[in-house]
Amino acid sequence: MSDLLEKDSNEKSADPREAEDIYAEDGSVRSSYLDRVRAALAEGRSDALTRDVGRLHESELGDLLEALDPEERTRLVDLLGDAFDFSALTEVDEGIRLEIVESLPNDKIAIALSELDSDDAVYILEDLEEDDQNDILAKLPFTERIRLRRSLDYPEDTAGRRMQTEFVAVPPFWTVGQTIDYLRDDEELPESFSQVFVIDPTFKLLGAVDLDRVLRTHRATKIEDIMRDTSHPIPAQMDQEEAAQIFEQYDLLSAAVTDENGRLVGILTIDDVVDVINEEADEDIRRLGGVGDEELSDTVRRTSRSRVPWLTINLATAILAATVINLFDATIQKVVALAVLMPIVAGMGGNAGSQTMTVTVRALATRDLGINNAARIIRREVLVGLVNGAVFGVLIGVVAGLWFESPQIGYIIAIAMVVNMLAAALAGIFIPLLLDRVGADPAVASTVFVTTVTDVVGFFAFLGIASIWLG
Amino acid sequence: MSDLLEKDSNEKSADPREAEDIYAEDGSVRSSYLDRVRAALAEGRSDALTRDVGRLHESELGDLLEALDPEERTRLVDLLGDAFDFSALTEVDEGIRLEIVESLPNDKIAIALSELDSDDAVYILEDLEEDDQNDILAKLPFTERIRLRRSLDYPEDTAGRRMQTEFVAVPPFWTVGQTIDYLRDDEELPESFSQVFVIDPTFKLLGAVDLDRVLRTHRATKIEDIMRDTSHPIPAQMDQEEAAQIFEQYDLLSAAVTDENGRLVGILTIDDVVDVINEEADEDIRRLGGVGDEELSDTVRRTSRSRVPWLTINLATAILAATVINLFDATIQKVVALAVLMPIVAGMGGNAGSQTMTVTVRALATRDLGINNAARIIRREVLVGLVNGAVFGVLIGVVAGLWFESPQIGYIIAIAMVVNMLAAALAGIFIPLLLDRVGADPAVASTVFVTTVTDVVGFFAFLGIASIWLG
Repeated sequence: MSDLLEKDSNEKSADPREAEDIYAEDGSVRSSYLDRVRAALAEGRSDALTRDVGRLHESELGDLLEALDPEERTRLVDLLGDAFDFSALTEVDEGIRLEIVESLPNDKIAIALSELDSDDAVYILEDLEEDDQNDILAKLPFTERIRLRRSLDYPEDTAGRRMQTEFVAVPPFWTVGQTIDYLRDDEELPESFSQVFVIDPTFKLLGAVDLDRVLRTHRATKIEDIMRDTSHPIPAQMDQEEAAQIFEQYDLLSAAVTDENGRLVGILTIDDVVDVINEEADEDIRRLGGVGDEELSDTVRRTSRSRVPWLTINLATAILAATVINLFDATIQKVVALAVLMPIVAGMGGNAGSQTMTVTVRALATRDLGINNAARIIRREVLVGLVNGAVFGVLIGVVAGLWFESPQIGYIIAIAMVVNMLAAALAGIFIPLLLDRVGADPAVASTVFVTTVTDVVGFFAFLGIASIWLG
Repeated sequence: MSDLLEKDSNEKSADPREAEDIYAEDGSVRSSYLDRVRAALAEGRSDALTRDVGRLHESELGDLLEALDPEERTRLVDLLGDAFDFSALTEVDEGIRLEIVESLPNDKIAIALSELDSDDAVYILEDLEEDDQNDILAKLPFTERIRLRRSLDYPEDTAGRRMQTEFVAVPPFWTVGQTIDYLRDDEELPESFSQVFVIDPTFKLLGAVDLDRVLRTHRATKIEDIMRDTSHPIPAQMDQEEAAQIFEQYDLLSAAVTDENGRLVGILTIDDVVDVINEEADEDIRRLGGVGDEELSDTVRRTSRSRVPWLTINLATAILAATVINLFDATIQKVVALAVLMPIVAGMGGNAGSQTMTVTVRALATRDLGINNAARIIRREVLVGLVNGAVFGVLIGVVAGLWFESPQIGYIIAIAMVVNMLAAALAGIFIPLLLDRVGADPAVASTVFVTTVTDVVGFFAFLGIASIWLG
């Protein structure tokens, strides 16, 4: 077939399907494949690239783009010309998407977008400057323009922004036969669909019929007799995360999106929802780890800058903890063992606190923690903190007592450990709960508050008890 | 309608749909609803419960079960009798599922399971003791038994274990008309389906047709002419996480599951995959936070015990860091300011390290980090570490120098900060990469290794430089 593929045929197995897999074992793009693409790019062999890269699935093309260098990316898009599948842009980092879109004239983008599903087109359009957006929209056919504009008018991260405006809808008085004939003959239908919506003349949503139901019913039956209640229409203004929860809760494959008057304006499909779920889980992990919206393709400057705020907050809290230590400098000077041991008390508290906090943040995110079980979970965490505090207090008490040949130091660190583990449990559960109550994201700020509490309490308890006991 | 609902009618809005929502604003089960259920449970009003609770969606029933106390749960299942929807058991914590299943006689479980989809039945069966499993299977009709046994024979967490064994398959030589007639007349079809598979007489998978394609094609057309290549059949032995990645990559709604001979044995649907995606994201968050497989319904004893291993490892590494401090006890005794400031150096390193580690762990999990970009990411993280080290080194240097009125201490902490931020970057990227390379889950152990490095390097650099400089 393509000369790109032929080159490779001697080193690959005989199975042609095998030869088409662009991925290596570890899931990254195979370097031999990458080398071939790079060679073709260098030689400007547009035909070879079209044959080889043009056949890739949009997500494979996206991975290929991410694996290439910036100049190679725009060169590939340029050489592919019309063969470049724009939906691949929905599969790459925002930085790469902008880089490619900005390298192309608006005319070309408009033509490409008009061939995409509306949700993909909106995904690409929404990140652009408003001037470019308007310019591209102006170049689109009227109905396309209205559709995309409608999605773009809904706020970011809402169901309306994510929805696809292509769907199949029929009136309730049609028969199954009429519906099937319509589906067979109409040329304007969306590329794929899994249900038929039922609407009145004003586009008000009446119900839906799954395709398997249509297929299982005799032609003479009326649609209204087999339609089911669309019990979970998604308001276009609904936050996408909330919409995703409804999908998960009721195992939906697709759902109608309606405007404030109950009119059908689009559909949301499970594949978009899977993306939302992934993004939200990712966001939680990143926020707990103190990383913002940075992307793997970001530069040193941007990455460094995006991490500064979190580190600054941590520096402030670390200085706060240091001032606590400073209160007891006289005691430390007398007993240096305290300086050696104090990070253990603070560190163990920090770890116990982040265990409790992780459980709390996740339970809040999955809506498993509410007023019905909050009291029980709080009691449990406090008891776990006391039990584990006792276990590790005794352990470190014995170790420290033997190490510094001082039973007193052993007692002091044991008591401080119990106190700090209890503080860790309380901070780990109440801080995320409070943040959630006041409408903040518990994932974003819990870590810093919890470790501040465990550092301050840890140092204060240990050094405080020591200064009283050891005079 | 039900007397349970009527009681509520005066306090609720006139919209009957509103009255049916069992959830409060925050997503937990409404306490007024819970109270009504509890009252009906206490009075043993089985009819009222059946009318009110029997109409709930399986996930709503699951949430209700989780909100009740253990005794109330088994009592509810008991009072509901045949009206209890067993699929709700797939929506609750494992502990609660076992508690309910173990309260029921095996005969009853067998009858209930035979009415579920095979994937739900397997989900409930797989956690049971082998004796109970065999006993229940023996009570099932032959074909059911064979189906469930086949799924159970595949290892846990594989596609074969998760698959549904009910599907629609037709031979390639059938026409669209024949297929539609078969779908209309056959009583044994699965409850819902979104594609028709095409198989040869030995059950070998030939292709698939989406239902919208069937509906859009004229009756005389042969299935083989419209079937598409099932380009992504899932081997039954494949790990569910890998299967989920294929779903995400190719935006699949359902996929054929094949045995080692390429025979169709079941299908995997997107709703199962959504569960897998959620579980995996959850696992990553929990592992980074040092929490194991604990559940919200676990007891104090079980929770406490499950957290001990992680805390023990942390205690060991904290003691290691303490021995590093102990090396410099003479210097600390001379300059107590060092004891005050040293947690700042270690803490900032820990935070910077966990930023880098979070990015690395996530990029590995989403397969965005591979050999093609590893060198670039490593270079970036090292540079970010140096830049942020310099920024915060200068900042804390000035603060510490002024605080303790000693420019020397300012210089020392600034240098130590740069060194530790660099160590943090290196640890944050290389530790997860190495763990991944040796086949371990980077999420599970990275945190402890990274903070060990940043504690040890932080204390050693700061106190070491100080002991040389300050003599």
